Formats: sequence, C-alpha cells, structure tokens
Amino acid sequence: MNDASPTSGKIPSVGAAQALRRHLEELDADGLGAEMHASIRDLYPICRSITGEGLRQSLRILQRTAPLELHEVPSGTAVFDWTVPREWNLRSARLTGPDGEVIADASRLNLHVLNYSVPFRGRVPLDELQQHLHSLPEQPLLVPYRTSYYREQWGFCIAHDRRARLPPGEYDVAIDTTLADGSLTYGELVVPGAVEEEVLVSAHCCHPSLANDNLSGMVLAATLARLMSALATRYTYRFLFLPGTIGSIAWLARNEAKARRIAHGLVAACVGDAGPLSYKRSRKGDAEIDRAAVHVLEHSGQPYRVRDFSPYGYDERQYCSPGFDLAVGALMRTPHGEYPEYHTSGDDLAFVRPDRLADSLRRYLEVFEVLEGNLAYVNLSPKCEPQLGKRGLYGSVGGRSHAAPSQMALLWVLNLSDGTRTLLDVAERSRLPFADLATAARALTAAGLLAPAPTRGKRE
Amino acid sequence: MNDASPTSGKIPSVGAAQALRRHLEELDADGLGAEMHASIRDLYPICRSITGEGLRQSLRILQRTAPLELHEVPSGTAVFDWTVPREWNLRSARLTGPDGEVIADASRLNLHVLNYSVPFRGRVPLDELQQHLHSLPEQPLLVPYRTSYYREQWGFCIAHDRRARLPPGEYDVAIDTTLADGSLTYGELVVPGAVEEEVLVSAHCCHPSLANDNLSGMVLAATLARLMSALATRYTYRFLFLPGTIGSIAWLARNEAKARRIAHGLVAACVGDAGPLSYKRSRKGDAEIDRAAVHVLEHSGQPYRVRDFSPYGYDERQYCSPGFDLAVGALMRTPHGEYPEYHTSGDDLAFVRPDRLADSLRRYLEVFEVLEGNLAYVNLSPKCEPQLGKRGLYGSVGGRSHAAPSQMALLWVLNLSDGTRTLLDVAERSRLPFADLATAARALTAAGLLAPAPTRGKRE
Amino acid sequence: MNDASPTSGKIPSVGAAQALRRHLEELDADGLGAEMHASIRDLYPICRSITGEGLRQSLRILQRTAPLELHEVPSGTAVFDWTVPREWNLRSARLTGPDGEVIADASRLNLHVLNYSVPFRGRVPLDELQQHLHSLPEQPLLVPYRTSYYREQWGFCIAHDRRARLPPGEYDVAIDTTLADGSLTYGELVVPGAVEEEVLVSAHCCHPSLANDNLSGMVLAATLARLMSALATRYTYRFLFLPGTIGSIAWLARNEAKARRIAHGLVAACVGDAGPLSYKRSRKGDAEIDRAAVHVLEHSGQPYRVRDFSPYGYDERQYCSPGFDLAVGALMRTPHGEYPEYHTSGDDLAFVRPDRLADSLRRYLEVFEVLEGNLAYVNLSPKCEPQLGKRGLYGSVGGRSHAAPSQMALLWVLNLSDGTRTLLDVAERSRLPFADLATAARALTAAGLLAPAPTRGKRE
Repeated sequence: MNDASPTSGKIPSVGAAQALRRHLEELDADGLGAEMHASIRDLYPICRSITGEGLRQSLRILQRTAPLELHEVPSGTAVFDWTVPREWNLRSARLTGPDGEVIADASRLNLHVLNYSVPFRGRVPLDELQQHLHSLPEQPLLVPYRTSYYREQWGFCIAHDRRARLPPGEYDVAIDTTLADGSLTYGELVVPGAVEEEVLVSAHCCHPSLANDNLSGMVLAATLARLMSALATRYTYRFLFLPGTIGSIAWLARNEAKARRIAHGLVAACVGDAGPLSYKRSRKGDAEIDRAAVHVLEHSGQPYRVRDFSPYGYDERQYCSPGFDLAVGALMRTPHGEYPEYHTSGDDLAFVRPDRLADSLRRYLEVFEVLEGNLAYVNLSPKCEPQLGKRGLYGSVGGRSHAAPSQMALLWVLNLSDGTRTLLDVAERSRLPFADLATAARALTAAGLLAPAPTRGKRE
Repeated sequence: MNDASPTSGKIPSVGAAQALRRHLEELDADGLGAEMHASIRDLYPICRSITGEGLRQSLRILQRTAPLELHEVPSGTAVFDWTVPREWNLRSARLTGPDGEVIADASRLNLHVLNYSVPFRGRVPLDELQQHLHSLPEQPLLVPYRTSYYREQWGFCIAHDRRARLPPGEYDVAIDTTLADGSLTYGELVVPGAVEEEVLVSAHCCHPSLANDNLSGMVLAATLARLMSALATRYTYRFLFLPGTIGSIAWLARNEAKARRIAHGLVAACVGDAGPLSYKRSRKGDAEIDRAAVHVLEHSGQPYRVRDFSPYGYDERQYCSPGFDLAVGALMRTPHGEYPEYHTSGDDLAFVRPDRLADSLRRYLEVFEVLEGNLAYVNLSPKCEPQLGKRGLYGSVGGRSHAAPSQMALLWVLNLSDGTRTLLDVAERSRLPFADLATAARALTAAGLLAPAPTRGKRE
Repeated sequence: MNDASPTSGKIPSVGAAQALRRHLEELDADGLGAEMHASIRDLYPICRSITGEGLRQSLRILQRTAPLELHEVPSGTAVFDWTVPREWNLRSARLTGPDGEVIADASRLNLHVLNYSVPFRGRVPLDELQQHLHSLPEQPLLVPYRTSYYREQWGFCIAHDRRARLPPGEYDVAIDTTLADGSLTYGELVVPGAVEEEVLVSAHCCHPSLANDNLSGMVLAATLARLMSALATRYTYRFLFLPGTIGSIAWLARNEAKARRIAHGLVAACVGDAGPLSYKRSRKGDAEIDRAAVHVLEHSGQPYRVRDFSPYGYDERQYCSPGFDLAVGALMRTPHGEYPEYHTSGDDLAFVRPDRLADSLRRYLEVFEVLEGNLAYVNLSPKCEPQLGKRGLYGSVGGRSHAAPSQMALLWVLNLSDGTRTLLDVAERSRLPFADLATAARALTAAGLLAPAPTRGKRE
C-alpha cells in the first residue's frame, strides 16, 4: 500500500472519477449480472457458518473473482469483549421419523440443521424433539434459518406445515458435527490508492444457503474488488469478507490502527433481490458517504429508500460502535427483515436476479465515482462570470429561455467554487448529477478558469 | 432545602425516575380522579379574585391535599412595574328589575358580578344600566366572566338572552363589595431534592366559579405536590398557587434569586376537559422541559397538540419574560380560549372529568420521570458491541428478523452513550419510550457495561 | 452622498419606515399604474441593444421620470474577463421574397432583425437564407428575440408559420447596421441616505420591443427612484439601468469599492405580467433582503412563489458571482422563461397591465419599509410584563379569549426585544406583519418601555 500521507497537501488528479464514469458508460451489465449470478450458484450449496470449512471453501471460490487473502484467527482469541469460538464443522445431520421417513437432511438443504448445533445421536420421543425444532407458523411452507453460536444446543429447522403433521413416536436424530479448536477465517483485499485514507466494503459470509443474504453481497464485493483493482484511484480500497459480528469484531480488534484510516465505508448485503435500492445512513448521519450514496440514489431514476442509522442490522453495528464511529453505511436493495423470504429457504437462487445484481454494482461504482471526484475548486475568475463564449464553452446565439444542462453545470461550478465547497456540495445545491459537474469542472480547469483548492474544502 | 450545589459533580442516583415509573404503573387513576374532582366541587362555589378572602379560603382548602404555606403581600407593594392592588371582597351583588325580578345574584353564581367591581347602590334606568352589563351575543345562554382590576367600575355579567328581554324602567343595583388596603395571598410548597436546581409547577387561583380554568390546575398541582413529597427526588420541586399575572409578578419580584434556580417549569391550567393534551413550548422553544413534554405526549398513545411559545396565555408570560427567560412551558388539555365554554358559566363542574384529570396527572408525572432520569452515560465497552448474550441480556437463538424492543433499547443506549448524550437524546433519536431506555441503562449499569457520565452531558 | 460611516454607532430614526407606511397607505395605485404603462408605450418601439442609440434614447426617456445620470464606457474597455464590444446601431433591416413580398422589416417590429446582426446586402437563395433565420416551431405565430453579440453573423427572426410558407427562389437581404467603436451606455441614480450602506435596484435595458422583459423593470425602477428621492432614508439607494450582463459587469469593474457598500439589492425584471409575484433568493439564500422579500410576499394576501438562487437569470448572476457575493435577489412576477410569451413578439404592450405594475411597485416599497425599519430594540422593563393598561396601551376589561392583534404586537415586541433580535426576527417568529410590529415598537418607545439597541442586533 502507498504510504503517502493523506495530509501531505498534494491534490491528486480526478482521473479515477473520470475513468469510473467511462467504465459506467461502457458497463456490460448483462455480462456482469450473469457472472455474479453464476458465482452465487457455485456458492449456494455450501454450508457456511461463522467458522469452519464451508466458510473457508466459500472464500476460496471468491478468489476466482478477486485475489483476496485468507486470514485465520485461532479459537480462544480474545477480541474486545468477545472470544473467537471453537470451529464448527458439519458432516451430516438427519432427522428420521418413527416410520423411517426422512424429515430433515442437511445434505439436501443445509438450513435444516440449527447452525452451530452440537453433535447428537439418539432416539427421542416427539414431545422432547419439539424442544429442538424451529419453524415458522406464519410461513408454514418455508424452512427458517436459525443459529446458536454461543449456547450449546442441538436442533433442526423445518417447515411448520411438516412439523404439524409429525406423528407421535420415537425419532432418530443423527447430527454429526464437530466443535473443536480451530480458527475463524476471513478474506481481505486492499487496493492501494494515492492516499492512505480508505474506502471500506464489507460483506458478511457466514450464512449458509441464503442467496440474497448474503451470497449477493459477497459476490458483489468480490466483483467490485476486481473492477477497482484495474483503476488508479485516489483512495485506498479495502474489501473485507468475514463472518457477521464476530468477524468484524475480530478484524477491528486486530486492526485498530488501520480502522482509523477508513474514511468512508459500505456494508454490502441483500443486493440481488427485485426490490428498490435502500441506503441506511452511518451513525454520523450526514457523513460524506451518506451524502454520496443518497445523491446516487436520488439520480438513479428509480424509486429508493433512505433509512436513518439504527444499531441493529449487519456489521455497520460494529464499525459504527461509539469507540470507532466510522462513516460506514449500508447500500442494499430490500433491507434485512423486510422481505418475507428473509432468513428462510425462500431466499434461494430464484430470489436473486442478474439484472438487479448488476444494477446494485452500478450504484456502488457511482458512489465511488463521487468519492473519488469530490474535490473543492477555486474559481480563478471570481468577479462576475467569465466570458465562456470566447472559450467555446457557451452557445453563440442568445435569447433562449433556458440554458442547456451542460451550461448550467458550468455556471454552478463557477458560482459556488470558492474553495470551501466540494463538487458534492455543488451537486446537492444545484440538484444536478455529480458526473455533469465533474465534467464541467474538468472543462473549466482545462480552460484555465478553475483550479483545485489547496485543501479539500469544508462543507458549507 | 438541601444546600448541596448542583454543580458539585456528584451524580445522584436515578432512583426517583425508577420510583416514579413504579408509581405510574400502580397509579390508582380512578381514585385520584375522583378525589381531584371532589376537591374541585368544594372549591367551585367560592368567589375568588386576585386578592381577598375567597382566594385565601381556596388555598386553605388546598392545604387539605398538600401542606402549602400561605404568604401575604400587602396592598401598595411595588412589584417590578406593578403595584399590588387594594384587596377586594364581595359580600353580595344583586340586580333587580323594575318588576322586582332578580336579574343577577352573585350568591347564586359569582360570575354575575364584574370581578373587582366597586361598590354601588342605587336605581338606574335601563339605558344607563346597559353601560354596566357584559354578555355574549354569540353564546346567548352563557354568563361571561369579566374583570376590571385596574379601572374602577361596577358591572354585572348576564346571559345575552336575558339581557335582550330586559324591560325598560328603573333597576335596583346593590353591589356590596369592599376595596381596601389588605394583601395579596399566594400559596407555596417546596419539596427539597438532592440538588438545588428546581422544577416549578405554577397554577393560577384567581378565577371564580370556573372549573377547568383553573380549579383543575389548582387541584392537579396540589395532588402532584402531595405525590412528589413522598419521593426522594434529584430535583427540588416548587409548587406555586397564585393569582394570575400580579401573583407571579409579585412572586418573581420577591424571589428573584430563587427564580434563577428554576431549571424546568410547567404552568398547570385547563387540565380537566375532555380534549386532547396540549403542550405550549417555553420561550426557549427547545429546552429540556419542552423536549421532555413533547416526548411524553408523543408516546402517550393519544392525539396531542404542540404549540410554539406566544407571549399570550397564563403565567408563562411572566416566567418567560426576557428578564427571566425561564424554561417554563404549559401542559394542559384544551388551551385557553379554544373551547366555547372558556371564561363562561359553561365551564362548570360537568365540564371537567375525573378520568381526564387523572390522565393529565399521569402526564405530569411522566414528564418528571424524564427530568429525573435524564442523565448522560458512558459506554464502558465502546469498541464494538459487548457480548450481551453471555450476560443474559440477549436471546440465545439467532437469525430472527427483528430484535425485541427491550434489546433495541439496550443497543441504542450502548451505541449513543458517549458521555455527551442524555437518555432523552437517545429517546428522540431512537424513537423509543424514555422508560424503556432508562430500564436498559439500569440493566447495563448493573452489568458493568455503562456508567453515568461525570457531567450531565450536552445535547448532540 | 452622505459620507457618514455606517459603523459610527449612531442609530438613525425609523422615520423612513413610518413615512413609507403612510406612503403605502395613500398610494395612488391607479395613477401610478397608468403612468408606468404610458412610459412603457413610449419606450416600446425603440430598438435597444447592449449598446447604441436606442439604449441611449431609452435612458433619456427614463430621465423624464427620475434624474438618472448617463455614463459611457468606450468600446474596447476591458471589464474583468470581458471587453466592451463595438457599438451597434440599426438603420434598417428588411427581407424581401422572390415575389417582392416583405417577409421581415425591423421598422415594423424590431425583433425581426437578429440583435447585433452585422450589415449585409445581397440576394441569397432560400437554402442559404435558412441558415440565417430564427423561428419557433412550437409557437409558430410568434417572432422570437435572438441575439449574437459576440459572434459576427447576420440574421432575421420570423414567425415559424411564415417561414414554412417561404417559396423557393432568391431573397433580397438588406441589413443596414453599423458595428463601430463607440461606447456602452448606462444610467445611474444615487439617493443618499443617513448611512453609506446601500440598497441596490438594478434593471436591464438592452431588450428591444419586449414589454415585460424589461420595459416593466426599467419603468418600475425609475418610478421607485422618484418616490424614494422624496424620503429621508436610513439607507442610500442606488438605481442602475444597464444592458444585461456586459452592463453590470462594466459597472462592477469600474465601481468595485462602491459595490462593497451594497447591503441589499433587487434585480427588477418581468414585473408587469398578470402572474403572481415571485422572489428569487440571493446566492446567500437567507440574507436580510431574502427574508424581507419573503416576509412581504407572505403577507401580501396573494399567491406567490419563492425560488432558490440559481446562477442563471439576469444581472443577479454578476452581483452574486463568488468574487462579489452581494445580497441581491430578484423580485418579479412570472420569472424569465416561464411564460410562453417570454422573448417573443407576444411580450407586447397588452401583456403588461397597469394594475400589476402598481402591485409590483407596492411590494418593492414594502420591502424597503422592512429594510428601513429593521432595527433591534431593548425592552427597558424586561422583568415580567410592564403594566400596559396604566399607559393606555391595553384594554381595561379583562377575561376575553384572545388579545387584539395590536396588543399581540406589543406583547411580542416586548417579549423578544433583548437587543439581539430585529423587528424582522420578531415578525418571522410571531407571524405578524412587519408594519404592525414597527407601530408597536414606536408606541412602546414613546411610552419609555423600549429603546433601540446600541447595535443593530444579530439574528437569533
């Protein structure tokens, strides 16, 4: 990684923003969507958890997309208030009825086993079995996803409809899992930029066969990592693939100094469903990442939702804990818990769509475009408007009712560029798309009418 | 009163908030409502004014509820720009028609006499009498309440319908009142708390037979005084029962230093009618009392109204004058002037309801609960979330869509407790009820995860 | 002009505000409207441009209304990034068809010639002619207004309907214009006030036969100049009549120090059409002029629109350029570009109405009333309310539901006058009209209860 201090005062070029714009204009959405969906299909059958071989194997599949590095944190390691648990591995888990019928089999659907279930083998009567079953009375055809990481118990998850028809009698339980010292695995990829300040993308990788939550986020983050690696960026980009909660806590505990470099961040989850885009603000509420994401959604031409921060959700809970308070939001489609298929067998391969994955990817890149290009400029001809016409920047016949949008972008950039406002400030006030203002700023800079401000500018 | 300085740095326990919560949960609303209504019935027939025996007698009736102390301010005393007027007492006031019919008799309804009317005895023709009559053309069946404290005149208030039928002829006027040197009376009760900073409750007591305005406020304030006397509170509570305008001016003039200790205050008036609760903000507009009262109304589960400060109304006019600018709002039901019965004979015993009186009382106590418990805390485990599960504060099976409300309260308190935000700040941002957050703060403190901030915290 | 420093600390009287109020109450709207419309009729036929005799002649006609002084800026003068162009004059311009029919004749309607067209004489075939024609396909019956100040070309503007029926053949073009060294002309009138700080009114005068844009603004500004000259004002008033863009740039370049004295300003344009009033905020967005104008519109009893600043429009573009950033807004009726007749032959004498001109004039005067009277006061009896009754400022019979509006104005001024708030602050918070509060402030000052604050006060 580049060691240049971000406070060295050197203003980097806005090349990455321009390159991202070209990238976006030429984006092969169909191809990328199909590719991401194919990766999800590869990952879907694997039984992941917050530790174990399934997680490791999944990260290795993501390495086909981007060269992320795998890290292991030994069981028993203290990470802030937590301890890395023993590693869990599943060999098989099957529940068989009194008549020999197979009620649940993790090899068919790994949601059937309570995630982190302790091993158990034996015959139990229906009454006792009921204490170990999880189902959804209001969604009787779906199998729920349930976990028990920190309390030792065994269990099965089944459809409520099936549960209601269980005959009395003795059931055969065969849960062949191991809980043993091992390690917690996470993946990491750093794409160095011109400055040490970082943009974080974090995806949780601990859920078993759930496509939207969060194979979609894992695959999106890996694809972003590959695309951003090809660009010379201003910011350094850090991509983290880790088990939810304990994974981000472990990373933060082991990388406290690095965490302080994270200037902007997004948690990637639930990015493949058919719902509109959503943005959940960081704890700060009005950080640059919040404003950039909201700007992108406002100009997306699609319906969208913006939510205030809440301390419930995914790993933004840890990044936004008061001891870190990082500017990390969550850019997603339908938020967790707000679609009926959430954390059930309904969140399957059909639930995520290639075109929605590609659309989500586009919005992440647009947010990066804003972050990369969000500099403050100084109008070098600030007294009255400069004569744009003699520089070929203005139409030659006057008198029309409205200025063309591109001319409005020139006028807004000139009017507000006093060194204290960034292009995002200009975008918010003018309601013009960031990219148009960035184009105007480049044209004005080329014409000698504008220069980057010596400092990045503070918001008005 | 406790002389401990409120800036001594010692953080008092939140015991009073917890005790108030228990109090509220066990509140005998029916009993208290019936009791308050009974007091109003006792007070109703008395002819009160801004001075005189009626006022004194009423305060003595309130002493049955709470041990308020009576103070006398002699006529002629200068109080800021005003002078305490001569004391007014009514023996009788009767208007008899040409045919001997009694048109108005203060012994039947004391609104009939112009309050502070000078004595007069004589026979006057109808034409001249008309100059001394007050009635309501748009509410022809109701007798209005009118006063003339500072201009000497005599008069009667009658129903407009009656007035329209007055036959020509000579009328017999017999107003037996006295205006003589005496004193202005007010009642006061101070309930000492751990700190010198005060919460004020002020009720005007000068209106004659008007039940909602303001026997309801007088009785509510006295009942609050009794209830708060039983608690060990953080704040000192001051209850004032005084004639409107001149009474609060007299108190402020004689207690200027004490007035500076008033940190939060409420004017209690019109608290017994069937309308929804209303809160009128203090002149400051966003003081802690304003935020506490609005929070209580928002979570009351009932419709409510919030009004901005205006320099018209009751004694908040004096407390919020620019030379004092105290954080005093008004918590009431239907505001003065906004119900048709206001300042008429329609504001009678049937107009105020025991259940509404009890509901108003409950809201006052809830506001006190917020004020008492509104401390700032520091999360002692601020880097990432602490592991609540191992402390028995979190459910053991994961994967569900939403956290339980009590768990959200824990997460919000942990996330925002950085020593600068009080629990009311947390309540406003999380939209959770204050009591839930106070419960969470107690549980977290008990678990060693939270501690009161060394200072009370400033709002974000 | 008065040389007294505006920072000398002497608080001027509010005489001008009071005089303006009387003026407004006695305004002869019919007479003034008729007079303004008559001036517009005189000006309408003249062919104006950003330089030339038509502009000079128009300013001389305005001198009949107010004694504005004419200034000449020679061609070739550098004014910031611009250069004053050669002077343009039109003798005649005629386009004749193959059959001898006159297609366009500037002597009939001067919009027909492309403004600043170079001279040309010759016969051109229809195909070539088309390159020089301007018309409006979507408004086929109207002749557009088009200019080419900075690129040398010739052209005609005609109705699209007429253009569509042009027969093939040779057309006779006879454009007799001159482009030669000369000067740019502008008019200026300064009405000195008690302080050096200025109020600017600026009207562009470069448009040919277009009545609303901007003969209406020119005539309104001249009439305002006459009316304000008759008053002893606190502020100095500067009225500028100049060609759009290049004129204000030239003035600012030659008067940079004077420009810094402009505390408040309005661009007057499009003030005669039948649409509702509009206010376009200054770049600052919440300057005193912005708040004064919005207050006037809010209390106008008519529908109105408020727009945020945008760097497109009229000369506010220059006044609000970042090197000046003056508090200059635009008070108009329908904004430029938002009525179909804008910049077409439809903007004729029938399009502007005497009553609307008078209404616009009234609103400008009301804004000046606010600016002149917008002082901060100090309540000299700030502890509790003073006793207004003994000073004859309050009704003598109490108990009514609501205070009279004039009494509310007294109470608001007393309550908020702590030396930090101006009367406009009080007006915004109380929602009362500024004039009522100014009247209350005068009454309270006369009663010895109020005094002007030593400084003008800062907004709360």
